[in-house]
Amino acid sequence: MKKTIAVLPGDGIGPEVTDAAVQVLQSIAMRYGHTFHLKHALIGGSAVDAHNNPLPDETIAACEASDAILLGAVGGSKWDQNPGHLRPEKGLLNIRKHFDLFANIRPLKAIPALLGSSPLKEEVAKEVDMVIVRELTSGLYFGEPKRRTEKAGVDTLVYTRDEIERIVDQAFEIARGRRGKVTSVDKANVLETSKLWREVVEERKAFYPDVEVEHMLVDSAAMKLITDPRAFDVMVTENMFGDILSDEASVITGSLGMLPSASVRSDGFGLYEPVHGSAPDIAGQNKANPSAAILSAAMMLRYSFGMHTEAAAIEEAVMSVLEDGYCTGDLSDAGKQVVSTERFVTKVVEELERE
Amino acid sequence: MKKTIAVLPGDGIGPEVTDAAVQVLQSIAMRYGHTFHLKHALIGGSAVDAHNNPLPDETIAACEASDAILLGAVGGSKWDQNPGHLRPEKGLLNIRKHFDLFANIRPLKAIPALLGSSPLKEEVAKEVDMVIVRELTSGLYFGEPKRRTEKAGVDTLVYTRDEIERIVDQAFEIARGRRGKVTSVDKANVLETSKLWREVVEERKAFYPDVEVEHMLVDSAAMKLITDPRAFDVMVTENMFGDILSDEASVITGSLGMLPSASVRSDGFGLYEPVHGSAPDIAGQNKANPSAAILSAAMMLRYSFGMHTEAAAIEEAVMSVLEDGYCTGDLSDAGKQVVSTERFVTKVVEELERE
Ligand SMILES: CC(C)[C@H](C(=O)O)[C@@H](O)C(=O)O
Ligand SMILES: CC(C)[C@H](C(=O)O)[C@@H](O)C(=O)O
Repeated sequence: MKKTIAVLPGDGIGPEVTDAAVQVLQSIAMRYGHTFHLKHALIGGSAVDAHNNPLPDETIAACEASDAILLGAVGGSKWDQNPGHLRPEKGLLNIRKHFDLFANIRPLKAIPALLGSSPLKEEVAKEVDMVIVRELTSGLYFGEPKRRTEKAGVDTLVYTRDEIERIVDQAFEIARGRRGKVTSVDKANVLETSKLWREVVEERKAFYPDVEVEHMLVDSAAMKLITDPRAFDVMVTENMFGDILSDEASVITGSLGMLPSASVRSDGFGLYEPVHGSAPDIAGQNKANPSAAILSAAMMLRYSFGMHTEAAAIEEAVMSVLEDGYCTGDLSDAGKQVVSTERFVTKVVEELERE
Repeated sequence: MKKTIAVLPGDGIGPEVTDAAVQVLQSIAMRYGHTFHLKHALIGGSAVDAHNNPLPDETIAACEASDAILLGAVGGSKWDQNPGHLRPEKGLLNIRKHFDLFANIRPLKAIPALLGSSPLKEEVAKEVDMVIVRELTSGLYFGEPKRRTEKAGVDTLVYTRDEIERIVDQAFEIARGRRGKVTSVDKANVLETSKLWREVVEERKAFYPDVEVEHMLVDSAAMKLITDPRAFDVMVTENMFGDILSDEASVITGSLGMLPSASVRSDGFGLYEPVHGSAPDIAGQNKANPSAAILSAAMMLRYSFGMHTEAAAIEEAVMSVLEDGYCTGDLSDAGKQVVSTERFVTKVVEELERE
């Protein structure tokens, strides 16, 4: 297959980790006879520096001419005092909205070798295996009115039935390919949008008789993610709750530096990026953990290109390198040999060539 | 002193645990020469059953004629299918709003004897000692418009400068009596209300030069509560974020059954209740942990009545009973002798009489 990939390295460690992912993609291309054409473009703080715009038109054009987007990370204190429209994260919000990437998908699986880095007791965190599906283009993030006066501020939480249906369907589909359980998280005892949300989940479940559904209030979900995370298979929720709960979930297994994410729409087009941030403090030091970016590239192969074998090969290669006892500095607790970003990638590529 | 206390037992284990707290209050009254006049009234599901109203007028009148309110817990699956205005929690929302109880205060302190029940590793959870201050009468919970149509739902997040100022001041005052650090949690990179919130915190901090202030995004706070909870002294945040983060925080030390809360306004009037819920599954079985209700009564003595010695005596008595090796079933992990609710209270009262 021939595919075009827009590569948006972004800020901080973004360039290092996307470089790593690109090396892995090239190795896959060679081995499986694909051609990946790469279009590099700017986003976030580096785009603000170059073009005074966190999502320049050229970047949008590059993405529009591509089959999928691979992103590093955006942000850094350098741009923290900028006005809203010149802040790095505005690039992220805009690209999600522009491409209608309504479904943010974050798989989370405990890696036995890394449980030592988890803040949770090993018996609580072990065997966690869940996916969080977060609505990404509506709710409090985008609802109008959204404004400030001298004396008050207002944001608006709006959801339409259609917006809820498509994200809920996405969660049901994912659950079908897994353990068949969906936990829908809302605040239906307080919010009107949550009452609608719950109603839509109840309606849609008729179309997925093979999937078990439970409703959970967001405050209970925040507790249960810590006390009993294994209870979850697929969690689906609205944008703001998803922001909070997915970040909470990202630290429970101690492997934040390993977590990939996908932000997709229904036709298979999507943006793939690590869950971790731009970590400006270690940028350019050849120290960053490239695993999350590499595993994001694997998600891209699977979801956007239908390359299941290739995706699985990447995932196995990363796990093998960890099992062989190599890791980057963020996982040094795990009692392994700490290696540089580049050396870790080389190991992954060697593993791919051996398989 | 003579004080009148409105006692609202509520549902599930509410009656058992408020009874326990009342026994402790009577013991304090005897010993310190106070008179506590009690006015019992209905709230929540039991009020719906009796009066078709989760917050009957008689209950409001009883509270208005009192110096403070002691509440058990509300809710239960029996009322889960009721329309919104006949649900138990509506009683809670209404009483907060009616009495303008804008500041929800939840202290959280690791108890060494109970760390075994924590889902977190002991070295992460030990020495946690923080207070969460949550705005309770504004934001998404009460903002208008708040409505449903067939095709969409809308809730409104509004904050005025005055509403933010008073809760932020409350947090600064509390921090002054502690380690002097306030972490203000918002989502200023996305929400207009959060930008105003951050601005107000920056303005108010000029009046508290002795207090250190940091701003944290809500998603980061959800992570940090798990990875490094000791980093917090006083956390202050808006209503919806506070609902999620305070419940998340409530499970990190393994002592949910021990946690009290206060919901107060500026003149000292307040409502005191356990953080835990109504636990219908164990209601009426003499099994519930009464500690949270007892410690809520202690908070009442301190905040609403200025009885600092008496409050400290209660807190010490509860800790002594735990240290002596007694606990209720919820804490059985801790390797102690499990006793009934009544027996636990008797122990606490004996301890108070011995002191
Ligand atoms: C940077 C920020 C706007 C963004 C969000 O809140 O969605 C981030 O936290 C995320 O979760 O991708
Ligand atoms: C019962 C519910 C309405 C309430 C809230 O969300 O405020 C509860 O969760 C709480 O935190 O006291």
